[in-house]
Amino acid sequence: MDLNADLGEGFGIWRLGDDDALLSVVTSANVACGFHAGDPSTMRAVCASAAARGVAIGAQVSYRDLAGFGRRFVDVAPAELADEVLYQIGALDAFARAAGTRVAYVKPHGALYNAVVHHEAQAHAVVDGVRAFGELPVLGLPGSALLAAAKEAGLRPVTEAFADRGYTPDGTLVPRSSPDALLSGTDAVVERAVRLAAKGELVAVDGSVLSVRAESLCLHGDTPGAVQHARAVRAALEDAGVTLDPFA
Amino acid sequence: MDLNADLGEGFGIWRLGDDDALLSVVTSANVACGFHAGDPSTMRAVCASAAARGVAIGAQVSYRDLAGFGRRFVDVAPAELADEVLYQIGALDAFARAAGTRVAYVKPHGALYNAVVHHEAQAHAVVDGVRAFGELPVLGLPGSALLAAAKEAGLRPVTEAFADRGYTPDGTLVPRSSPDALLSGTDAVVERAVRLAAKGELVAVDGSVLSVRAESLCLHGDTPGAVQHARAVRAALEDAGVTLDPFA
Amino acid sequence: MDLNADLGEGFGIWRLGDDDALLSVVTSANVACGFHAGDPSTMRAVCASAAARGVAIGAQVSYRDLAGFGRRFVDVAPAELADEVLYQIGALDAFARAAGTRVAYVKPHGALYNAVVHHEAQAHAVVDGVRAFGELPVLGLPGSALLAAAKEAGLRPVTEAFADRGYTPDGTLVPRSSPDALLSGTDAVVERAVRLAAKGELVAVDGSVLSVRAESLCLHGDTPGAVQHARAVRAALEDAGVTLDPFA
Amino acid sequence: MDLNADLGEGFGIWRLGDDDALLSVVTSANVACGFHAGDPSTMRAVCASAAARGVAIGAQVSYRDLAGFGRRFVDVAPAELADEVLYQIGALDAFARAAGTRVAYVKPHGALYNAVVHHEAQAHAVVDGVRAFGELPVLGLPGSALLAAAKEAGLRPVTEAFADRGYTPDGTLVPRSSPDALLSGTDAVVERAVRLAAKGELVAVDGSVLSVRAESLCLHGDTPGAVQHARAVRAALEDAGVTLDPFA
Repeated sequence: MDLNADLGEGFGIWRLGDDDALLSVVTSANVACGFHAGDPSTMRAVCASAAARGVAIGAQVSYRDLAGFGRRFVDVAPAELADEVLYQIGALDAFARAAGTRVAYVKPHGALYNAVVHHEAQAHAVVDGVRAFGELPVLGLPGSALLAAAKEAGLRPVTEAFADRGYTPDGTLVPRSSPDALLSGTDAVVERAVRLAAKGELVAVDGSVLSVRAESLCLHGDTPGAVQHARAVRAALEDAGVTLDPFA
Repeated sequence: MDLNADLGEGFGIWRLGDDDALLSVVTSANVACGFHAGDPSTMRAVCASAAARGVAIGAQVSYRDLAGFGRRFVDVAPAELADEVLYQIGALDAFARAAGTRVAYVKPHGALYNAVVHHEAQAHAVVDGVRAFGELPVLGLPGSALLAAAKEAGLRPVTEAFADRGYTPDGTLVPRSSPDALLSGTDAVVERAVRLAAKGELVAVDGSVLSVRAESLCLHGDTPGAVQHARAVRAALEDAGVTLDPFA
Repeated sequence: MDLNADLGEGFGIWRLGDDDALLSVVTSANVACGFHAGDPSTMRAVCASAAARGVAIGAQVSYRDLAGFGRRFVDVAPAELADEVLYQIGALDAFARAAGTRVAYVKPHGALYNAVVHHEAQAHAVVDGVRAFGELPVLGLPGSALLAAAKEAGLRPVTEAFADRGYTPDGTLVPRSSPDALLSGTDAVVERAVRLAAKGELVAVDGSVLSVRAESLCLHGDTPGAVQHARAVRAALEDAGVTLDPFA
Repeated sequence: MDLNADLGEGFGIWRLGDDDALLSVVTSANVACGFHAGDPSTMRAVCASAAARGVAIGAQVSYRDLAGFGRRFVDVAPAELADEVLYQIGALDAFARAAGTRVAYVKPHGALYNAVVHHEAQAHAVVDGVRAFGELPVLGLPGSALLAAAKEAGLRPVTEAFADRGYTPDGTLVPRSSPDALLSGTDAVVERAVRLAAKGELVAVDGSVLSVRAESLCLHGDTPGAVQHARAVRAALEDAGVTLDPFA
């Protein structure tokens, strides 16, 4: 099992989340590339730390939207989006190379992540941008247009599940506006993670059991509580004998 | 002799200069990387055209200053500047690779170009950024701190001269605020270029003859007249039997 | 009748359209406020020229999208959009005051203009931003959610028609992707303008005659041909005895 | 005596400092206007809170430098700087008006604050931008080119002193790179503040006593410790019978 989380999401003087804490937990780091967050010096520092710990570096590509942290859908023309994706991967790869490694995968961020679940043209644009760079795996939601486009283009689609998010009975995420959007309590998060890793199952908000094949588990780290959850998940998975390795 | 010029200096809807016209003249293209100009789609298009014509692609790195077109000195800390240089080269290299080639050299733009003539810390920062990417040649002013730092770091320093700028008797450029800043007339520009290429000499504003060793000649293309000059220079050099080739 | 056009749409070194030419034609100037185009020095210069000629100054508010020139829908939360609108009007008003006048109206730009034809939440957000500034008229498409929201909020809704765009039989604009998007030829544009001003009628792409009540006629100036059209429209309206005055 | 501090220095998702805590301490709020920090929604919220508490709103104008938080000198042409200052004041004033008040003064931020101590051209540019808006007081360092230019232009120059910064014997601030840059401990900060308010004196790093006339005392709030200091300073000044009021 792989554990991924978003890292390097500060900009200039501003910080978000605890990069050091998360780098000691995850096996794959989704590193912001400057479009929704992430300045060059932060990118260098995160890549250096990740490389030193054997954490895989992924390009967390985004809409160009610092003011909105990439959380607002932008109706970018597909050709431009592909070019923006390529730009971001290239920039991050320079820091990965400087740290002795390479960008190992790509994961869209925020509103782009949500858009490419259904938006065929933008999903193909992201894949076009990745392919223009090279044969990198693409991390996304099971069943998404993005992973279908990646597979069709000969890229490896990698599915992820969420340790701390509520799921509907049909396997989609409960919207953040709902009270059931987040699992409450460390125990629930840990139980979710272990069951997913061990049996490929998770319990939806209505109590039904879903079969979910995920190669990676997404953790969050932008709050102190989230970092605690992430550490507890890693410890529990190791106790359960799950091997934690980058998928890429 | 190499002929270089700035290309891809539009942004979004805005254009600057005639990229197609210049690409048919130069042997090396200094491509804007997004910090003073240059959006991803422009970068892709310029790299594709340059690669198709056998024009070498250089990273025209700059301060982060779209509003000022990189023409204002910014007192960036050297470590951050090095990271910003690396970011820009990496981003451009992704487009160069997608076009089947690589970034072949680095040339600072605007106020950064001027600063690193004397500013030791920023000169070393630019070189650090380049070295973090790889062993690329650095294009700059003869006698500049930049080229000294490049040489010291084991990078190839490449000197350039200007076909259309006035020189003082001690070999520096006449400031743009002076009436002698630009040579007037195509004849003067062409004569300058041919004499430089053939004899390594140029005539300063006071009539004295300077010995100048330049591996590249910098042309401008941001005005219709400048494009005419550039074409005339190329034709005259070819007539004079000068071989035009990328230095990189 | 009022004649409006977009002005001040350069940014930094980049220019778009011929501001001086248009300022001699229009009675109302939609001035870019820095979010899709328009730097402070351009805003000052345009406001000074407009004030000197008695041209009314309108705030051409936009999504925060320099890279896309505000032509891409952005799913901004309404409360943030209202604040962004207020910010832009306030900034422009400082230049209008410095020129001895005030911002006289507000017109959304590009994708925001198109969005608020139907997007109720964003339409109300724009109106909220305007009202937070003051009781300014709002310029938009007849029948749009924007003008309905403006009227409901006690602001003056002002309708506009387009001199050079094709209309469908039901009064909407032919999409730019269609060959009928633009009227071809100065004669067609002039005839459209005069008939609109004189009779409140225009001819749709299928030849049907629509009754259109517009208080302002929108001209374009971002191409040399467009400036010619704009001048011809003004001359023809004056010849036809139409009084040209700012609506605000 | 007036107490001022920087507020609203977040951007988008990122926060900096505790605006609510500081607003309960200060009498004047230097509000970021979007160029080094400060998005429209933050500006609205800070202006509303300040107005509700009777705290004066000042425009904390800056170089256009989000990535560097306005802490890097930028060699902007004076005419452009004046326009950028006017833009920022106008934008903030829209939120102040919406909150029922007005921008009451202007204070430059970061590298611009430091530059206009000696940089005559930029000092006059800031003053030109302020005057284009209106007759606002300007807050700055005693003896600075900025305050001299303000006085010369007929604007009210307002001097400030720093509660927590080390001073050299000649009245300048100890550079941040020195170990004596900051006073250590709440007692020292409080003693400084009370002596300044009561006697117009402060003790320099060499123990000498300087006579300092300051109308405002600058507090910091970007660390938890700084907020504690700020609260202790206010309490001690009130205990000492000092009346705390906005200068503007």
